[in-house]
Amino acid sequence: MENIRTLLKLPENYAVIFMTGGATAQFAFVPMNLLGEGQTADYINTGSWAKKAMKEAKLFGKPRWAASSEDKAFTYIPTTFDFDPQAEYVHLTSNNTIEGTQWQTFPTAAAPLVADMSSDFLWRPFDVKPFGLIYVGAQKNLGPAGVTLVLIRDDVLAKCNPNLTTMLKYGTHAGENSLYNTPPCFSIYMVRNVLRWVKGQGGLPAMEKQNRAKGGLLYGAIDGSGGYYKNPCDPASRSVMNVVFRLPSEDLEAKFVAEGKAAGFIGLKGHRSVGGIRVSMYNAASVASITELCAFMKEFQRKNG
Amino acid sequence: MENIRTLLKLPENYAVIFMTGGATAQFAFVPMNLLGEGQTADYINTGSWAKKAMKEAKLFGKPRWAASSEDKAFTYIPTTFDFDPQAEYVHLTSNNTIEGTQWQTFPTAAAPLVADMSSDFLWRPFDVKPFGLIYVGAQKNLGPAGVTLVLIRDDVLAKCNPNLTTMLKYGTHAGENSLYNTPPCFSIYMVRNVLRWVKGQGGLPAMEKQNRAKGGLLYGAIDGSGGYYKNPCDPASRSVMNVVFRLPSEDLEAKFVAEGKAAGFIGLKGHRSVGGIRVSMYNAASVASITELCAFMKEFQRKNG
Repeated sequence: MENIRTLLKLPENYAVIFMTGGATAQFAFVPMNLLGEGQTADYINTGSWAKKAMKEAKLFGKPRWAASSEDKAFTYIPTTFDFDPQAEYVHLTSNNTIEGTQWQTFPTAAAPLVADMSSDFLWRPFDVKPFGLIYVGAQKNLGPAGVTLVLIRDDVLAKCNPNLTTMLKYGTHAGENSLYNTPPCFSIYMVRNVLRWVKGQGGLPAMEKQNRAKGGLLYGAIDGSGGYYKNPCDPASRSVMNVVFRLPSEDLEAKFVAEGKAAGFIGLKGHRSVGGIRVSMYNAASVASITELCAFMKEFQRKNG
Repeated sequence: MENIRTLLKLPENYAVIFMTGGATAQFAFVPMNLLGEGQTADYINTGSWAKKAMKEAKLFGKPRWAASSEDKAFTYIPTTFDFDPQAEYVHLTSNNTIEGTQWQTFPTAAAPLVADMSSDFLWRPFDVKPFGLIYVGAQKNLGPAGVTLVLIRDDVLAKCNPNLTTMLKYGTHAGENSLYNTPPCFSIYMVRNVLRWVKGQGGLPAMEKQNRAKGGLLYGAIDGSGGYYKNPCDPASRSVMNVVFRLPSEDLEAKFVAEGKAAGFIGLKGHRSVGGIRVSMYNAASVASITELCAFMKEFQRKNG
């Protein structure tokens, strides 16, 4: 996957691995490989996925929260951190699909950063070097469900637990170029095609330009609605992948979802744990589609304001 | 997947689960779930895959060999077994892709049978009831790589280790109908299509008839070659999925593979660990294709005999 290396400007000392099981499996594979009994790791609590990652890590070592935005219902990304100098790594969720927040810049820590980038990988250029490990369930910006990308730095790979079962060791897959077992061929083939598409679009700078344009349009529509549409997140933490907002009532939200669907906008219902509206606009969503959505929102407000 | 239930006549007390990682991951997931520290399980050694399963099981408990055909280079399926009454389960590999052997009937044991059926699932009807767990890496008779089918009986499911990480517990996937995480959708969709195809062919009795016809043709060609082609396996243990044979020399084998490929017969080279020729004729291989291969073999022998 030469295109992963060139798109990310990935240094030579990172292995590119294809695994399966999604981010949900990586929640456990990371601490299984990197967190020994009694060892600690710093986790940053930005919502549902971070909590799930923490839950699995507790089975293997002594992870702790180094920061949390639970005090304000996960409407912001923390900017101050209580890092433990003994931590084996610092884990973060770079985009929070349910809460609609996204890391704009990443923290500086002594330990390697480990990131769940499942829902915002390839949306923009970023500096990989502070990250010891990045995992990506493909089914957002990268490809179809059924394959998980792992980028792991050599020094982190060298510290992995050697006593794990073969398939759960990052070293097995890194050492065999992801061919220790039969990998999920079709999904990997589709990832190849997506990477070519991203390259053809102009690479990550072009993706960022498009994603920021979509974010500007939709947040502009929300903020310009005179309070009819309300986004609960701190503006500095707003996600340009998943935009969440509320309408004046749950009845109006249900109507918005139904009429939106009839107009061709699918999946507008917010996650069942938080309610409201969610617009997922991954790389595949065009600026034109968001322009149309904003027009729909304006018209919906005019009729139901 | 109603068609799995109807094709196999699967009793209600079995859960149907879709996972990932292939048989290679199940080699570990089975003992992780079913074999506690100090507990024992009976494994039957019929070749490379059984050995890999044993290697992973040793990380979790005290598995032992209850039978082995290693004394004759895995050219037969054992018929006598030294079962341990304390065994949690009896593990077998129902078809051995490298050695070209296949179980025709399954042993009777007090403990539940656990089978790796990756390479011969759906080739014929069989009685599921003695099996506590069956796992199937899809990419032979069932569908594309990237999904693994697990059938697990309720009493075995109830005994699974509850302290595992979420994604590695059979109970997680059984309890959530394989939707705890985003499953490998495309691969599962293709499995659905394959099941419909099998049903349309006349179900498992029709598959068996076709597979036995292919086996009859190819083994007939080998046995009728006056020793030019030689199959090393005990006739009662011969696989109708993977037929292995030798030619009089390695040079002739290389020539056979090359000329076969030119004639449209791909993948004839035996596994690198054993050499020789291997013909894989899963459900997708037609009787006509094997008839053509037999004609090619006859002509090759005439020219190179």
